[in-house]
Amino acid sequence: MFSLHQRLEADSTFVMDLFLCTVRLTHNAIFPWILLIPRREKIVEIIDLSALEQQQLLEEIVLASRVMKSLFHPCKLNIGSLGNVVPQLHVHVIARHETDPAWPNPVWNSGFTASYEEKEKNERINLIQKAFLTVRP
Amino acid sequence: MFSLHQRLEADSTFVMDLFLCTVRLTHNAIFPWILLIPRREKIVEIIDLSALEQQQLLEEIVLASRVMKSLFHPCKLNIGSLGNVVPQLHVHVIARHETDPAWPNPVWNSGFTASYEEKEKNERINLIQKAFLTVRP
Repeated sequence: MFSLHQRLEADSTFVMDLFLCTVRLTHNAIFPWILLIPRREKIVEIIDLSALEQQQLLEEIVLASRVMKSLFHPCKLNIGSLGNVVPQLHVHVIARHETDPAWPNPVWNSGFTASYEEKEKNERINLIQKAFLTVRP
Repeated sequence: MFSLHQRLEADSTFVMDLFLCTVRLTHNAIFPWILLIPRREKIVEIIDLSALEQQQLLEEIVLASRVMKSLFHPCKLNIGSLGNVVPQLHVHVIARHETDPAWPNPVWNSGFTASYEEKEKNERINLIQKAFLTVRP
């Protein structure tokens, strides 16, 4: 059994399921920004996962990194597991550019947010889905 | 050959070397905060490491997480690889508490900083060294 925290549900849209994680697009059109959420109950920290699940999470972070790099050509990837507000384990993978408004600060609490238009969001999700299926580790 | 970025050198103090990473204590006494820096030249992203090095980095993140959890009893660990200012790959492992002044926001750019007294810093470094040698994965 796996249920998504209501805040993650509200702030992001489903992209696809990997072996361990569900991938979601964060609702902020300013930054190419996805979340990896292990489909396990009551997991807060990476060290709450089994050793095998940790390995799988790493593989999926690496895969997500390659996807975001190939699609958005970031000058830097920002990868983080914070969870101070939403305790359910979720890993941020964000493509950062020197031209983005929050650069070089972190995106969290940057104050820079913008909604996706529905069409734009669906296009981005399709793009990311395709990249996950074609980018190889 | 491995050299530390001058900003990391200035903002943190050596704790110990693990198999892949050098561990350093960040100069901010408000948050228990260490850095893991792979001792490899010209590595910016986790995906710049070889697959074996990525596995080792994961093991050392897990070990560091257990060390920080056992020593500081955080309500949440914050783990992140950002590098927008210092490109050399470094992973933050930070013990967060609901009572810390930045909570629940991220520590980066929080504006909350305090210097360690030399004695306090050395004691914390000794404590972390011992925990790395005794905490088991």
